[in-house]
Amino acid sequence: MQKLLKYLLYKKSALKKNFLPLHEPDISKLDQKEITKIINSGFVSSVGKDIQRFENIISKFTNSKFVITTINGTAAIHIGLKLLGVKKGDEVLLPSIGFVAAANAIIYNNAEPHFVDSELNHFGVDPDKLKEYLKKNTYISNNKCINKKTKKIIKAIIIVHVFGHPAKISEIIKIAKKYKIKVLEDAAESLGSKYKGKHVGNFGDIGILSFNGNKIVTTGSGGAILCNNRYLAKKARHLVTTSKLKHKWEFIHDDVGYNYRLANLNAALGISQIKRVNKFIKKKHEIYKRFNKLIDNSKDLFLLNQPKSCRSNFWLQTLVLKKPSVHLRNKILTIFYKKKILARPIWKPLHKLSFLTKYQKMSLKNAEQIEKKIINIPSSCYL
Amino acid sequence: MQKLLKYLLYKKSALKKNFLPLHEPDISKLDQKEITKIINSGFVSSVGKDIQRFENIISKFTNSKFVITTINGTAAIHIGLKLLGVKKGDEVLLPSIGFVAAANAIIYNNAEPHFVDSELNHFGVDPDKLKEYLKKNTYISNNKCINKKTKKIIKAIIIVHVFGHPAKISEIIKIAKKYKIKVLEDAAESLGSKYKGKHVGNFGDIGILSFNGNKIVTTGSGGAILCNNRYLAKKARHLVTTSKLKHKWEFIHDDVGYNYRLANLNAALGISQIKRVNKFIKKKHEIYKRFNKLIDNSKDLFLLNQPKSCRSNFWLQTLVLKKPSVHLRNKILTIFYKKKILARPIWKPLHKLSFLTKYQKMSLKNAEQIEKKIINIPSSCYL
Repeated sequence: MQKLLKYLLYKKSALKKNFLPLHEPDISKLDQKEITKIINSGFVSSVGKDIQRFENIISKFTNSKFVITTINGTAAIHIGLKLLGVKKGDEVLLPSIGFVAAANAIIYNNAEPHFVDSELNHFGVDPDKLKEYLKKNTYISNNKCINKKTKKIIKAIIIVHVFGHPAKISEIIKIAKKYKIKVLEDAAESLGSKYKGKHVGNFGDIGILSFNGNKIVTTGSGGAILCNNRYLAKKARHLVTTSKLKHKWEFIHDDVGYNYRLANLNAALGISQIKRVNKFIKKKHEIYKRFNKLIDNSKDLFLLNQPKSCRSNFWLQTLVLKKPSVHLRNKILTIFYKKKILARPIWKPLHKLSFLTKYQKMSLKNAEQIEKKIINIPSSCYL
Repeated sequence: MQKLLKYLLYKKSALKKNFLPLHEPDISKLDQKEITKIINSGFVSSVGKDIQRFENIISKFTNSKFVITTINGTAAIHIGLKLLGVKKGDEVLLPSIGFVAAANAIIYNNAEPHFVDSELNHFGVDPDKLKEYLKKNTYISNNKCINKKTKKIIKAIIIVHVFGHPAKISEIIKIAKKYKIKVLEDAAESLGSKYKGKHVGNFGDIGILSFNGNKIVTTGSGGAILCNNRYLAKKARHLVTTSKLKHKWEFIHDDVGYNYRLANLNAALGISQIKRVNKFIKKKHEIYKRFNKLIDNSKDLFLLNQPKSCRSNFWLQTLVLKKPSVHLRNKILTIFYKKKILARPIWKPLHKLSFLTKYQKMSLKNAEQIEKKIINIPSSCYL
């Protein structure tokens, strides 16, 4: 730990930074060219061609047939769930270990979050616990998964690829199929991450990405819906553009709609950024190796490696305590905090947030452990 | 009409445009400076200082004490209604003559749209009809306005300043106060418009702006909540930043929240744009005068001037048929369409959209007339 801290302090001083953030995007003069083109064209809003161009590039990069960009990842989850048929009164499974946006998006759809546990190695949904839980607590009726207790339909599950590390997505998909549950893959943090050679976000019925300012590729704010189904893609595009029908001049909207399209200005930045994504990922792998050497042989903690058969984008580097301890975790966080190096624990498990305690959950022993074990440390490409 | 059409065709050809859009923002090399600064600083997302700077400039320009920027105007209405206490099962009055976003935002809050009529001169909510309707159809109980028929609370009214022309806001506010109804002023199209010397958006309990690409000042996509109440402003800022509490490192959210903050990249464009807003408005007044001369003495139609005691920003220039006629309206629209000059009717009255027909409404005779009388024509500053 001391060697790592020393290195980060050295970097902070060499880069002349007042504080070292967790993750800064690599924004450089290279990005100016695309933006300048946009400014010169005058098309900064949602009518420009760059949105289409950006979507095509993401489609190639992720190997998703259809890509619909959105103003952010939250909007993508909101609409994604709608595409999967999530309606008022439905239940949606999601890991307690994840960003709050997923729970919010379920509630936007007037559905109910229902928390599941995560596995201890890479913090994705635990397939074994999921299987056992569904077996015990649900039955299939009319091709739908029914919660025995509430009699409500469990319509979908959200799988999060945490910090850029793929969850055990193949196993989870198998279970979800058996139980007639649709899968939304939250790959917000995982652009460029692959599970057995296939880009994440492509395993489930719908995938989503985020291009927020803290992500590996940024558009300022932005996100995307990934899918391989032409009908769903068309529906997504309709919903995010206020459900407006095509007409020479009339304003006809045929459903409740959303103003969720990415602006051209933001897409232009994305086009420039995504050209460098493989370079970014390479750098992040190097950072992992460097940091790993610096904390070698620590008795208390280790640096998280990518899962077997996976390529992680290593968006955030993660220290894992060998034994769960809020005391040790906070001690380390405090050391970083005092040195103006941003470190943070994993998100507070969602089932513990005051407005979410009322929702259903399985036993969340792993989530409780994970909360006490994780520290993310600065991970920007310039390190 | 012929003279006006000739002028627009001349402009289209002089500007070497394939088609003449309804409204294009004035994006120029002047905007590059601010954007380049942002790119060089690396802070393109929601952590940069430009958001605060942009909010301060809008605050000064509109004379609103508090300004909270958002990703778009729809998000601003969504949160604005929440600030006014709009909840599941409440009713919210809104004009049938307006953009669909207002109705959607009511539905996002699980409340019910309830349509009111507009006045024939400038298409804002008709205060006389509103007064009569409330008198007949509501009563006050416990300081709340109750719909006699449904027994539901009419919590708020949305007032739209259509095409940049102020509605009869003072009269409406008086009625709303009497009936204990909160007022959200939708000034999405009306940055720079004033009613008796006071900037619109400042009369109601909450105001909103839009900086979409088709507006007088653009941020690519963007919007703002205006208010003069410190408590509501604080609540707005909390809600649009995922309801996250301040903490050294913990992620604690105390309520359902939204990812609605404007990104720094977009704020930078706004800062550069808003410096020129008075110039834009001056140009738009000149365009009004020029167009007005070109259609002088038409027996069928006239060009809409600003209301008495108001300064409109003249965002969109508006032809008004002297007698309602869909036939004549469509004939004119077709002429423009064939010449690749974009013209459009006013929005289809919202109560006629299939997904909104089920909601309550007063008699909407004026709205039906307005639909048959209005043609917006190209209005960009370069004309």
